[in-house]
Amino acid sequence: MKIIIAGASGTIGKQVAGSFGPEHEIIRTGSKSGDIHTDISSVESIENLFRQTGPFDALICTAGDAHFGPLTAMTDAQFRIGINSKLMGQVNLVLIGQHFINPRGSFTLTSGVLSRDPVLTGANPSAVNGAIESFVRAAAIELEQGVRINAVSPTVVEDSPGYFPYFPGHMPVTMKQVIYGYHKSVLGGITGQVIRVE
Amino acid sequence: MKIIIAGASGTIGKQVAGSFGPEHEIIRTGSKSGDIHTDISSVESIENLFRQTGPFDALICTAGDAHFGPLTAMTDAQFRIGINSKLMGQVNLVLIGQHFINPRGSFTLTSGVLSRDPVLTGANPSAVNGAIESFVRAAAIELEQGVRINAVSPTVVEDSPGYFPYFPGHMPVTMKQVIYGYHKSVLGGITGQVIRVE
Ligand SMILES: NC(=O)c1ccc[n+]([C@@H]2O[C@H](COP(=O)([O-])OP(=O)(O)OC[C@H]3O[C@@H](n4cnc5c(N)ncnc54)[C@H](OP(=O)(O)O)[C@@H]3O)[C@@H](O)[C@H]2O)c1
Ligand SMILES: NC(=O)c1ccc[n+]([C@@H]2O[C@H](COP(=O)([O-])OP(=O)(O)OC[C@H]3O[C@@H](n4cnc5c(N)ncnc54)[C@H](OP(=O)(O)O)[C@@H]3O)[C@@H](O)[C@H]2O)c1
Repeated sequence: MKIIIAGASGTIGKQVAGSFGPEHEIIRTGSKSGDIHTDISSVESIENLFRQTGPFDALICTAGDAHFGPLTAMTDAQFRIGINSKLMGQVNLVLIGQHFINPRGSFTLTSGVLSRDPVLTGANPSAVNGAIESFVRAAAIELEQGVRINAVSPTVVEDSPGYFPYFPGHMPVTMKQVIYGYHKSVLGGITGQVIRVE
Repeated sequence: MKIIIAGASGTIGKQVAGSFGPEHEIIRTGSKSGDIHTDISSVESIENLFRQTGPFDALICTAGDAHFGPLTAMTDAQFRIGINSKLMGQVNLVLIGQHFINPRGSFTLTSGVLSRDPVLTGANPSAVNGAIESFVRAAAIELEQGVRINAVSPTVVEDSPGYFPYFPGHMPVTMKQVIYGYHKSVLGGITGQVIRVE
């Protein structure tokens, strides 16, 4: 399979990229890293990505920012960080990528536990993750030619100790558990699912 | 209670507004209707609303557009209709309104069944509704001085036959059921809840 990974230099993305065996062709992208540079917050940059890759079999996105900060001081501009990056970035990878993906291909997006289990300062990533999960359920019933879409929704990963203070009582999951989530989506047959890793 | 209703001239909003007895003071707003004109897609317009109302006890929002259309032809601009109106409009009513609301006041937003049960052409409202529901769960743990927040999440209402063709197999709910959802949020004690009306 030809697999595009957006965010392939990140904590999760580089492990996911490395987990697919030599029988797959991996195309790594990031805004400042990878085989092709792509800013997922830009429609033009995403169009440019797919023009360069041509048809592909799977797209995995492990890229996208959101804003952590107290609700009591949050502004429209801060809230739009997650909207424009993690949410619209992933939505646009699908809206544009659906015109390049091969029949029976798959999209695998990344949301996160905050959609259902909030933490203090996490209102923006919570909203973004909830949007991604509902988008995946809705897009699955409209994608054509057997194309599938799922979201992997992990809690904090053991490899990201910087996030631990934000997630009291969230037992970190192993990177191996997270990788299995992406494999279930890409190599399996499910669609419209939120794959919880927690 | 002093209750602000954004979208008070709409199908749901006018019935909800009318359902609160004479012991409550109702302030009706809409972009082109109501006691005060407010475009919820504009931060300045929302700030202007609360400067005019002053402190209040409850805000109900039954306003906000989203885009219905086939996923296969959907664009970034179309997807942003729901983001800028129904999602960011309601989020900004809370981000700004939290600085004007009285202690123990409440915010009641409106999402919808598409967060969990998609229909064809509904990817944008699905994502928007999912975001609102996760936002409400997250905001509830940070709002101060006992301020509460919930979302009412109805399926199609009997008073909106224009939506029926988009919702095959969704049994319409009565307006009375929907009104009870808003009363549960405003007059009760719950917070961080998605009140399903289906
Ligand atoms: N780590 C966790 O514990 C955890 C838990 C739950 C959910 N998640 C979610 O999983 C995803 C990945 O998390 P992570 O910790 O692996 O992130 P990370 O280490 O910060 O890596 C982010 C990756 O995305 C790329 N990127 C950032 N902005 C981009 C943009 N605008 N366009 C294209 N690429 C961009 C980065 O490459 P460049 O620098 O080259 O752009 C990098 O490869 C995020 O959505 C996060 O919310 C993470
Ligand atoms: N009706 C249903 O069956 C149903 C089912 C589930 C969920 N919902 C949700 O419930 C909400 C209300 O639905 P509805 O059918 O009652 O809508 P509606 O009849 O179209 O009414 C919309 C209301 O919002 C106001 N409005 C529209 N855009 C606005 C803006 N930018 N700023 C401020 N006010 C604005 C309108 O007044 P102006 O014209 O003066 O702006 C009007 O009062 C929507 O979020 C909808 O998705 C509806």
